[in-house]
Amino acid sequence: MTTDAQPPASSPEPDRTRQAAIDRLKQDVLEANLALPASGLVTLTWGNASGIDRDWGVVAIKASGVAYDTMSTDDMVIVDLSGKVVGGEKRPSTDTPTHLALYRAFEQVGGIVHTHSTWATAWAQAEREIPLLGTTHADLCPHPIPLTRQLTEAEIDEGYEEATGKALIEVVAPRGPSELPCALVRQHGPFCWGRTAAAAVASAVTLEEVARLATLTTLLDPRSPALDPALRRKHFERKHGPRAYYGQPA
Amino acid sequence: MTTDAQPPASSPEPDRTRQAAIDRLKQDVLEANLALPASGLVTLTWGNASGIDRDWGVVAIKASGVAYDTMSTDDMVIVDLSGKVVGGEKRPSTDTPTHLALYRAFEQVGGIVHTHSTWATAWAQAEREIPLLGTTHADLCPHPIPLTRQLTEAEIDEGYEEATGKALIEVVAPRGPSELPCALVRQHGPFCWGRTAAAAVASAVTLEEVARLATLTTLLDPRSPALDPALRRKHFERKHGPRAYYGQPA
Amino acid sequence: MTTDAQPPASSPEPDRTRQAAIDRLKQDVLEANLALPASGLVTLTWGNASGIDRDWGVVAIKASGVAYDTMSTDDMVIVDLSGKVVGGEKRPSTDTPTHLALYRAFEQVGGIVHTHSTWATAWAQAEREIPLLGTTHADLCPHPIPLTRQLTEAEIDEGYEEATGKALIEVVAPRGPSELPCALVRQHGPFCWGRTAAAAVASAVTLEEVARLATLTTLLDPRSPALDPALRRKHFERKHGPRAYYGQPA
Amino acid sequence: MTTDAQPPASSPEPDRTRQAAIDRLKQDVLEANLALPASGLVTLTWGNASGIDRDWGVVAIKASGVAYDTMSTDDMVIVDLSGKVVGGEKRPSTDTPTHLALYRAFEQVGGIVHTHSTWATAWAQAEREIPLLGTTHADLCPHPIPLTRQLTEAEIDEGYEEATGKALIEVVAPRGPSELPCALVRQHGPFCWGRTAAAAVASAVTLEEVARLATLTTLLDPRSPALDPALRRKHFERKHGPRAYYGQPA
Repeated sequence: MTTDAQPPASSPEPDRTRQAAIDRLKQDVLEANLALPASGLVTLTWGNASGIDRDWGVVAIKASGVAYDTMSTDDMVIVDLSGKVVGGEKRPSTDTPTHLALYRAFEQVGGIVHTHSTWATAWAQAEREIPLLGTTHADLCPHPIPLTRQLTEAEIDEGYEEATGKALIEVVAPRGPSELPCALVRQHGPFCWGRTAAAAVASAVTLEEVARLATLTTLLDPRSPALDPALRRKHFERKHGPRAYYGQPA
Repeated sequence: MTTDAQPPASSPEPDRTRQAAIDRLKQDVLEANLALPASGLVTLTWGNASGIDRDWGVVAIKASGVAYDTMSTDDMVIVDLSGKVVGGEKRPSTDTPTHLALYRAFEQVGGIVHTHSTWATAWAQAEREIPLLGTTHADLCPHPIPLTRQLTEAEIDEGYEEATGKALIEVVAPRGPSELPCALVRQHGPFCWGRTAAAAVASAVTLEEVARLATLTTLLDPRSPALDPALRRKHFERKHGPRAYYGQPA
Repeated sequence: MTTDAQPPASSPEPDRTRQAAIDRLKQDVLEANLALPASGLVTLTWGNASGIDRDWGVVAIKASGVAYDTMSTDDMVIVDLSGKVVGGEKRPSTDTPTHLALYRAFEQVGGIVHTHSTWATAWAQAEREIPLLGTTHADLCPHPIPLTRQLTEAEIDEGYEEATGKALIEVVAPRGPSELPCALVRQHGPFCWGRTAAAAVASAVTLEEVARLATLTTLLDPRSPALDPALRRKHFERKHGPRAYYGQPA
Repeated sequence: MTTDAQPPASSPEPDRTRQAAIDRLKQDVLEANLALPASGLVTLTWGNASGIDRDWGVVAIKASGVAYDTMSTDDMVIVDLSGKVVGGEKRPSTDTPTHLALYRAFEQVGGIVHTHSTWATAWAQAEREIPLLGTTHADLCPHPIPLTRQLTEAEIDEGYEEATGKALIEVVAPRGPSELPCALVRQHGPFCWGRTAAAAVASAVTLEEVARLATLTTLLDPRSPALDPALRRKHFERKHGPRAYYGQPA
């Protein structure tokens, strides 16, 4: 993307192209949010999904505390990467600073989902990373699902949600967001991402099933061994690698 | 509320204003009851929801042992705070004295829900309070969910349901019903409340998920640590405190 | 019932009254069978419900191995108490001799349900009676849910299904079927009963939830104490005793 | 089947009879695939079902990575037993070589299902065969559900999916596919089969419930004894033996 091609993202009078891009983004993010209760990942008004349009530098995210069953694009709030609300009438999700920190840190991330999905949250509350116990996990990523560190009291009192994003970045950065499409916030719950908001939902659905499998496996045998490196690479690469042969050609 | 403004709650000939208030209350309480099977909190005819109109001193509560799938406002019984039936053709829930004891003890309570919801009841049967293991719990309340004491044989034989209310009040009073929106009756199941019947349902739904998370966390690690005080305050206050920033401005 | 009043049950030409009674019975038993998948108690073609008309000495029971989603009264087979098929074109459930043994042993039983419902079957497979850990169980019955003894190899080879009935009668007879509305067949699954086929379904639904609660309670604390006698009597009697005050007056 | 009766399976110009057979097969296999999400056995695009027409030597199998909610017969790919695509526009499931190895090894197998169904996969990840703990299991098969050996690094790197088939054949061959309608691939998940694609789905549904029962039984008592031989034979034979009396006469 050259400087010439860059759209006037900061223009006070948004042009039609920009509005069309935002409308598409809001629709995509609405659908990602609606997929959360449909997939059994959220209770009541919990959870949120967002998406970014990198060309226009705008993020759409669920408004805070709104009901899923009457949700529309009017419940999608538009913010820029600094957190300034630039579209929509509502207050954005309280977790917005966490989403924005991740978008700023990782260019490859196009969509983010946060839930308190039951089985993944149990691992977060038990303060354990999710071990890589089978091919279902390796189909998602070739590493254990990491757990963030404890926040300091200063971080909790000041800019808590942004500090959560910082702690996530610390555990994701060593592998990168393509090999680690999710992580657990300690004693809280999962954040998941992907190239689009829909891909982030797929990460969240897969993580929840991986967490459930790991829980049941651990109950059957607490010393179940990790998948060996050859098998974890095989499964990850056949689905996501440069010579992937899972799925249909694009 | 001045003495002048107080409506003639004991009038034998209810006026139209009173009837309209009761009709609204019955409708609200019917909807709260119907939300229980829809939320997977009850089996068969179990469970009950009630609501109070403090101005008129009347409580609407589910009739005893009636089916949810054909339930209507005719299944809502109106009682006063002493337990006298003042409206409706049916026998009120056997748990009515427990509800009334709570309404008399706590002015802030506007709706109450009782269920045998699976995961919360398992903690009641294991005779354990639910430890505060994560932010999902702290979003509901900043304390462990307490467990009532064992009733004496005399309490069981005489006025059992009212004694249950008394035991609940004993564990809730120290924190108050706003910071403790629910408690477990030992070897029985949860009672939950809120400012309205709908809010009591939300407490019941949240408690059940909190209990499920606590069970799974405990199975993964029986020594999972409690959430530290700074984090539990942060989550409770951002949702319920005077400077709450979760949700939309009223 | 005097000999005069007894209808001609063995008449080869069934009269209209008898046919009307059988038609009603088939409809009731069809509805009980359809309630099993609707309540999540059965998988594929598993499970069966039956009902008896004591006046005419006939039992209606599900045909063996038929699908629930296309089930009609044509899938209800009529047998007499000796097991002779006296109505319907299909082969009755392989478990028919177990049902008949129970009907012959206990006059109060009007309907029977057999399932492999998950949580109750887990207790049967673990060869443990279900302990009485809470009021939900006491609302169903004031005793632990018993487990049948192991059958001998001779019993398995000859008249296996009737021997299963005999083993059930051995554990139920001491308390009687009103105080014990269900029992577990060792390493197999539950049989449940009641005054009607619909009541047997309610027993089966309740037992499954009681078994689930007992499992989760046991996982939280394997030494969870039994409910004390005063409380178990209180809950059973307020629902089923001569001075019951649960539910609506008949 | 005589040589004369054998259809010209390798003919480059498929005749109408062959096309009709393939159309029927595609329809059957489509229905088997659609039964997987309907039965709660698969998440997202995971899992696959196939079927074989032995007369024409063709296998229909789900295309790789396609969505279930818009699936049609166009998503069924036709391959021959060597793996050559002979019909359909899409890339077949990555697991196709595993299916073909099983079809080549076992003439009795007419349909195969692979899933990562939760409870069965937990046993595969815990690297444990599923013990025979009750009659529900014996109704499916009279043996524990075996677990494949670990693949070598060479097998993982070269022809991984076919090596998986080889490992399955090693554990199934001693008993044969009629007495062993499924097996667990170590740290991966179950493969299930039957005389038709629909029968393979029924095996997969039953296995998942058997795995769930075995998990819960094991949690209640890790030393739960295996079903004794007389009872396991009784249940298997009354459903699948030459003198079976379960179900309706054909």
